[in-house]
Amino acid sequence: MSFDVLQEKILEKHNPTVAGLDPKPEQIPAHILEAAYRDYGTGLAGAAEAVWQFNRGLIDALCDVVPAVKPQAAYYERLGWRGMEVMERTIDYAHEKGLFVIADIKRGDIGSTAQAYADGWLAGTKVGEETYKVFDADCVTLNGYMGSDTLKPFLDACKANDKSMFVLVKTSNPGSGELQNVTAGESMIYQRMGDMVETLGQGLEGKYGYSPVGAVTGATWPQELKDLRARMPHTFFLVPGYGAQGGTAEDVQYAFDKKGCGAIVNASRSIMCAWQKTGGDGHDFQDAARAAAETMRDAIGAYVKMG
Amino acid sequence: MSFDVLQEKILEKHNPTVAGLDPKPEQIPAHILEAAYRDYGTGLAGAAEAVWQFNRGLIDALCDVVPAVKPQAAYYERLGWRGMEVMERTIDYAHEKGLFVIADIKRGDIGSTAQAYADGWLAGTKVGEETYKVFDADCVTLNGYMGSDTLKPFLDACKANDKSMFVLVKTSNPGSGELQNVTAGESMIYQRMGDMVETLGQGLEGKYGYSPVGAVTGATWPQELKDLRARMPHTFFLVPGYGAQGGTAEDVQYAFDKKGCGAIVNASRSIMCAWQKTGGDGHDFQDAARAAAETMRDAIGAYVKMG
Repeated sequence: MSFDVLQEKILEKHNPTVAGLDPKPEQIPAHILEAAYRDYGTGLAGAAEAVWQFNRGLIDALCDVVPAVKPQAAYYERLGWRGMEVMERTIDYAHEKGLFVIADIKRGDIGSTAQAYADGWLAGTKVGEETYKVFDADCVTLNGYMGSDTLKPFLDACKANDKSMFVLVKTSNPGSGELQNVTAGESMIYQRMGDMVETLGQGLEGKYGYSPVGAVTGATWPQELKDLRARMPHTFFLVPGYGAQGGTAEDVQYAFDKKGCGAIVNASRSIMCAWQKTGGDGHDFQDAARAAAETMRDAIGAYVKMG
Repeated sequence: MSFDVLQEKILEKHNPTVAGLDPKPEQIPAHILEAAYRDYGTGLAGAAEAVWQFNRGLIDALCDVVPAVKPQAAYYERLGWRGMEVMERTIDYAHEKGLFVIADIKRGDIGSTAQAYADGWLAGTKVGEETYKVFDADCVTLNGYMGSDTLKPFLDACKANDKSMFVLVKTSNPGSGELQNVTAGESMIYQRMGDMVETLGQGLEGKYGYSPVGAVTGATWPQELKDLRARMPHTFFLVPGYGAQGGTAEDVQYAFDKKGCGAIVNASRSIMCAWQKTGGDGHDFQDAARAAAETMRDAIGAYVKMG
């Protein structure tokens, strides 16, 4: 099962963190940008090439420190089809380097359309008699506002292809409570969403006790994190909001089970843009990213004991 | 204002319907598929070319009958970057033919990521000193589960670029009530989402009385449609679920205001795949789509009187 594979990679590296790959050209060191603009022009093609070179460098630097990467679709879509081509290449390259890939797409739609997204991101797309892998992620993030019937095509794709998914439950942004913390009867909306997610995965638990239906629960809300960990014992957590958004190592400890399993914490800017804080010109972006990832691993390690 | 432009196109054509462009290769006539596979191979490149030829034919056939088209991103993403390139081309071609373009993307994410999506689909992406249009839609669909702070970057992009957006309120799928019809205090969740949407657009109303923040409200729930029309007087509605999903002309009448304005009804398969019901071999796909669009226009016209 897909989260078994992720958990094993986490245990192997003693590191329950995922590095976000969300690059905007302004965050890429000048020497990479200049080379890309020189070879591909200063437009979208050059920007996409720069993103690719930056991602490849980050993956090379991080692949023996972190178990997983999480490219965020928005930063590729904003560069148009050229960006999406880099998304495909990034996923494939991360796989070559042994990393687990979470595509942060936050999709969600009705039956046949959900199926089309599941084809694109998990199962592969049938053309004639052949199935072609497209954005070949191990796992995706999804939005379940439309109801669990809209998540089922993704779950079917996960089951058939040994993949997994994270559904938004309690998000890390300041305004997440506006809808998610509304009380309805005896529970809040985020709890209902949590129950829906836990139920959807029932009976599909792998060897670490987690189903392929995970949940996104923000590091910025430690109380809710604690509540959800108890409420959703078979649900793996993806925890955004660490670092730049304010979540700390102390906060994220509540996402883990007693064995230190069942969760992965995301950091994007703090790893990806670590080079901007070294005082250098960006030639050290790989060392800076690696050092930041090690610092984060050790900070979480002080609170979360594995195995 | 963007919905003023849409409303004018609707009044001009006396037709409040939008044609969905959600093609899967299996729904494309054999002669188009065969030509595309012959020229581009039987893989994703051939499939993407077939989608492009089919879309172009549909746009040519429909551009003087319907005011708008709605490409659904999932069907392009499932073909990878080649599909996304066809998405860009389809949007541009629909504009050439005078159509309003709603990109059905159902995106939603936190601040900087929402901004990246808004760049890609509405505002254009800055690279160096230049801004490049990417997927240059007039309007997008969004998911607001994360809270209204996550919708604001899209609203800012709408205001700055004279564009508009539809936020999911009450969706057309059978399971939409699972979360959306949960009662919280004095209102249901879909009503709260509706209030959030109405409030977000306050003070931005155009000449027909509608703000750039619209709502998605399914044709399959006529009671909710009636309720929401009264509750959200300044919110333009996109109404999916007509035809194949069970919504009728009688049902959708409740989405419109007293002047027959303020809403647009989507149909995808019933127009796009009309050729599959003529008994022909698909060479008549344009005439069939056009006839289906005219039938739908007249069916809704029997209930909705404009101007």
